[in-house]
Amino acid sequence: MNYQDILNEIHEEIQPYLKLGKVASYIPELANVPYEKFGMSLHTVDGKTHSVGNAYENFSIQSISKLFTLTLAKQLVGEKLWARVGREPSGNPFNSLVQLEYENGIPRNPFINAGALVITDVLISNFDNPKDKILDFIRLLSGNKDINYDPDVALSENKTGYLNKALANFLKSFKNLDNEPEQVLDVYFNQCSLAMNCCDLANSCIFLANDGRSHHFDEVITTEKQTKYINSILLTCGTYDSVGDFAYRVGLPGKSGVGGGIVAVMPDKFSICVWSPGLNESGNSLAGTKALELFTTMTGISVF
Amino acid sequence: MNYQDILNEIHEEIQPYLKLGKVASYIPELANVPYEKFGMSLHTVDGKTHSVGNAYENFSIQSISKLFTLTLAKQLVGEKLWARVGREPSGNPFNSLVQLEYENGIPRNPFINAGALVITDVLISNFDNPKDKILDFIRLLSGNKDINYDPDVALSENKTGYLNKALANFLKSFKNLDNEPEQVLDVYFNQCSLAMNCCDLANSCIFLANDGRSHHFDEVITTEKQTKYINSILLTCGTYDSVGDFAYRVGLPGKSGVGGGIVAVMPDKFSICVWSPGLNESGNSLAGTKALELFTTMTGISVF
Amino acid sequence: MNYQDILNEIHEEIQPYLKLGKVASYIPELANVPYEKFGMSLHTVDGKTHSVGNAYENFSIQSISKLFTLTLAKQLVGEKLWARVGREPSGNPFNSLVQLEYENGIPRNPFINAGALVITDVLISNFDNPKDKILDFIRLLSGNKDINYDPDVALSENKTGYLNKALANFLKSFKNLDNEPEQVLDVYFNQCSLAMNCCDLANSCIFLANDGRSHHFDEVITTEKQTKYINSILLTCGTYDSVGDFAYRVGLPGKSGVGGGIVAVMPDKFSICVWSPGLNESGNSLAGTKALELFTTMTGISVF
Amino acid sequence: MNYQDILNEIHEEIQPYLKLGKVASYIPELANVPYEKFGMSLHTVDGKTHSVGNAYENFSIQSISKLFTLTLAKQLVGEKLWARVGREPSGNPFNSLVQLEYENGIPRNPFINAGALVITDVLISNFDNPKDKILDFIRLLSGNKDINYDPDVALSENKTGYLNKALANFLKSFKNLDNEPEQVLDVYFNQCSLAMNCCDLANSCIFLANDGRSHHFDEVITTEKQTKYINSILLTCGTYDSVGDFAYRVGLPGKSGVGGGIVAVMPDKFSICVWSPGLNESGNSLAGTKALELFTTMTGISVF
Repeated sequence: MNYQDILNEIHEEIQPYLKLGKVASYIPELANVPYEKFGMSLHTVDGKTHSVGNAYENFSIQSISKLFTLTLAKQLVGEKLWARVGREPSGNPFNSLVQLEYENGIPRNPFINAGALVITDVLISNFDNPKDKILDFIRLLSGNKDINYDPDVALSENKTGYLNKALANFLKSFKNLDNEPEQVLDVYFNQCSLAMNCCDLANSCIFLANDGRSHHFDEVITTEKQTKYINSILLTCGTYDSVGDFAYRVGLPGKSGVGGGIVAVMPDKFSICVWSPGLNESGNSLAGTKALELFTTMTGISVF
Repeated sequence: MNYQDILNEIHEEIQPYLKLGKVASYIPELANVPYEKFGMSLHTVDGKTHSVGNAYENFSIQSISKLFTLTLAKQLVGEKLWARVGREPSGNPFNSLVQLEYENGIPRNPFINAGALVITDVLISNFDNPKDKILDFIRLLSGNKDINYDPDVALSENKTGYLNKALANFLKSFKNLDNEPEQVLDVYFNQCSLAMNCCDLANSCIFLANDGRSHHFDEVITTEKQTKYINSILLTCGTYDSVGDFAYRVGLPGKSGVGGGIVAVMPDKFSICVWSPGLNESGNSLAGTKALELFTTMTGISVF
Repeated sequence: MNYQDILNEIHEEIQPYLKLGKVASYIPELANVPYEKFGMSLHTVDGKTHSVGNAYENFSIQSISKLFTLTLAKQLVGEKLWARVGREPSGNPFNSLVQLEYENGIPRNPFINAGALVITDVLISNFDNPKDKILDFIRLLSGNKDINYDPDVALSENKTGYLNKALANFLKSFKNLDNEPEQVLDVYFNQCSLAMNCCDLANSCIFLANDGRSHHFDEVITTEKQTKYINSILLTCGTYDSVGDFAYRVGLPGKSGVGGGIVAVMPDKFSICVWSPGLNESGNSLAGTKALELFTTMTGISVF
Repeated sequence: MNYQDILNEIHEEIQPYLKLGKVASYIPELANVPYEKFGMSLHTVDGKTHSVGNAYENFSIQSISKLFTLTLAKQLVGEKLWARVGREPSGNPFNSLVQLEYENGIPRNPFINAGALVITDVLISNFDNPKDKILDFIRLLSGNKDINYDPDVALSENKTGYLNKALANFLKSFKNLDNEPEQVLDVYFNQCSLAMNCCDLANSCIFLANDGRSHHFDEVITTEKQTKYINSILLTCGTYDSVGDFAYRVGLPGKSGVGGGIVAVMPDKFSICVWSPGLNESGNSLAGTKALELFTTMTGISVF
């Protein structure tokens, strides 16, 4: 069975799962997305693209943005990054303040909210205009110049994001932010608001499957070693407090967002993005995780 | 030995302890207070006043203000208050976020920072001008119209109080603040900045020793029952994470602040205030606690 | 109204509360006690006794025994005791292992299970026959030579007390037990199994209201200072994770047990014991706490 | 460079690292092993073996045994296993009781001590003679009939293993052990005491690199799917509280033990075992981790 046939079959099999998840409801912009949406896009390292469903419809990438900001920050400060943020799974909800208190303000990894705020702080300290730089980088990775922040989503999160404000101020109290919490939150809420589709996201991640090089433009994004590093962090920390379950069922490095998107990569083979707004209890797309599980089961391809 | 002789003897005995504590250093206004300062003031329910040392010199009352705002809030909403804040000792540092997360945003008691922020939120919801009301109340209790906020202290705390900002936003994320965190913090930083002396504070607390009535004016502050309630909370929660030690050594209901002040009361007998800026590891005045221990040992008077 | 009338009135008023609590069910010996039982006994420092209901019926004193073992251990090792156990309220359930892990095996106070095991360990290290010594001490305090361990209760607890076994081994792993966990648990399960009635217990505690002296025999149990010390620990740590609530509503130093008994003392006035098997959520007798609240409200007598 | 040359080079490069770790000291049998020991053994799926250093010298496999008992238990009860133990990284030290309390006695994964005790409990409930069965299974996997328990090590751990006793009793208090803690601990201490060498262990793990089949005997140990499952748990949970670091630096599913051994597998390619007694702060072999990092860096082979 070829990849397109597999995507088509998943599209059919996944229908009963779409309504089982719960759409994120904390801001209207996310709550209003219909749960029936489902898209999937696969990009192979030899340049082929296969898509199914709503693969070309934009959604809010939310925490998937943490993968891109980590890649940028790692380019900027290298291994020094690990003095300010760990690279261990947290064993706690993604927005917990508990561990941060016990571990003196050093977030467990760059993919929990506290860690992502530290990463954003690094970008602010290194770029004159961090919001532009992040946007330029995403446009470069995806090859899509039309990608943009969604100001309504960013504003909504700024109005209601008390937990993230608590985290930013808590980090600052441990002196693990160089900039003011308000600045860091402004950039952070914007990066989370990026509107992209499955095809954009699969395109943006192909460098992780291709030893750091994109196939649609001629630039090295990360060295081969850095690429492996990022993939390892994705696998051990990329899907909130269910990384073990995701590795068990899907078996690929991946990153999820509460907008319902998940990106995953198979080194030397492909990048893949799936989108379905209904979330499971851990905050990952329920049908999206199931779709990826079906994909690795049907193809027999995973890192294990 | 009469009370004045006892205060004089304590004043002598306490000298070697003054330099053992550590003056709070997180804002310049507190850090610059000389550690040699020591004052003590005793007010008896029959209207006598005894003082020693720097008893008439102003200091920043800080967390002692939580006693006055609790009294106000209890007057306003009565037993309903306990739906939003507990009345149990925390067994944790006064500014911990851990317990708040495990207990769904209900602070353990009104005297840890999180609880005090909820109390301040209650005042804001009930008063048109909460800052004026708090100030009026303190002036009434103390009988001193000249008491005022210290705007420099309030501003400094607002600039550097990231941990309190984290707490306020965290409470708001649990929907346990009705007002915006910024508003609550503004009033809170102001109440903490109040500048008072030992005599003012002992005067302000005499109602707790006198079944709710002051001796220097003719108004019932709290009913006899409410008075007992407040005293019980002082004893079990008033001195941060060392209430057990304070009860063991001093044996009186009391409230401390990081400015180095401690107020305490003996029901039916007296209120007392001591000030010495050097703090012990729990954030209570080191020499102040020792002075109160000497006082209850020498007089043989305590609630136990 | 005299004391006997007050006890009689409480006996009537308390009836609807008896069935609201939940009888401890983890061993058959406790589960089989009828919830309707209610007894109360008051002993004044001038030697009078007032009783009501099932005041002369034996029940399992359970954690109330911790008060007697603490008194013994304090006699033996004095202030050195505090190197191995704290005297702060825990802010956690009485059998929690969490705090013990964060605080390196030093229990918060002598009245949570972990702390009581350390106290028992002290007795084992200091007495050739600790079980006999404890029994002798209780018989002396109560003036009742017929008091005894209940071997069925002790055996049941030994068979099912996995949580206490976990605590003892956990303490040992931190080297905060000198003896083997099995030995400590054996003595501990026995001390908890002591069968006593309200009158015995009020008698046994009168020394705490009487500056350390009993009125029914001529021996100093504790110095005046030690007596105050123990009372302070009772007030801040004696009633599990609801010491704040107990101080607020009752306002007396007290110690409870899951057998449904509670002892309390008013310095210079009286000791009191109440028994009702139904427990509230914190593990204290529900109707017993209510009865004590009624008593201090009706008499207007409390430490506050 | 061929595999043997790479092993030889690693053997040279690793020398300065041998003395940097700290040999486990809690029982004499482990403490007495010289830190200079270093062995490494590689088994490829096409049946080749390469070894270097002390690859044929026995050491105590300790927690590596958890991999074998998990494989057995998964065969016995399948997916039902996950009702009693999770498969998420813990984000806590391997012997922590904290998380167990917050998560009601369900250990985070089969590789922390609490989880491994549950697994052993499953084996006891399903086998008449679990110790024989475990030994038979290891002898089968390794092809070495001479492998045996080390009774001195097992006895030493039984005498001093208070923390494991605490864990077993704690699990039992949550009713997550079917058998008595003593029984479970007896089997557990024995399985940890198994004495094996690098070659035995690499041999024993080749099925994980070979879709569930061994190359040295004709039996399917696990299905292809089960094999992937176990590898995923190894990667996300196999190396205590540093799984993120191990994935980052080494990039292979692996399991470590405090005896200084680490096994790892590369699906479709090889299994590998390294031994060096000095441990890093997380309890993994310091030089062993470094040797595996050198191996995956020099060969460019990892799952990422």
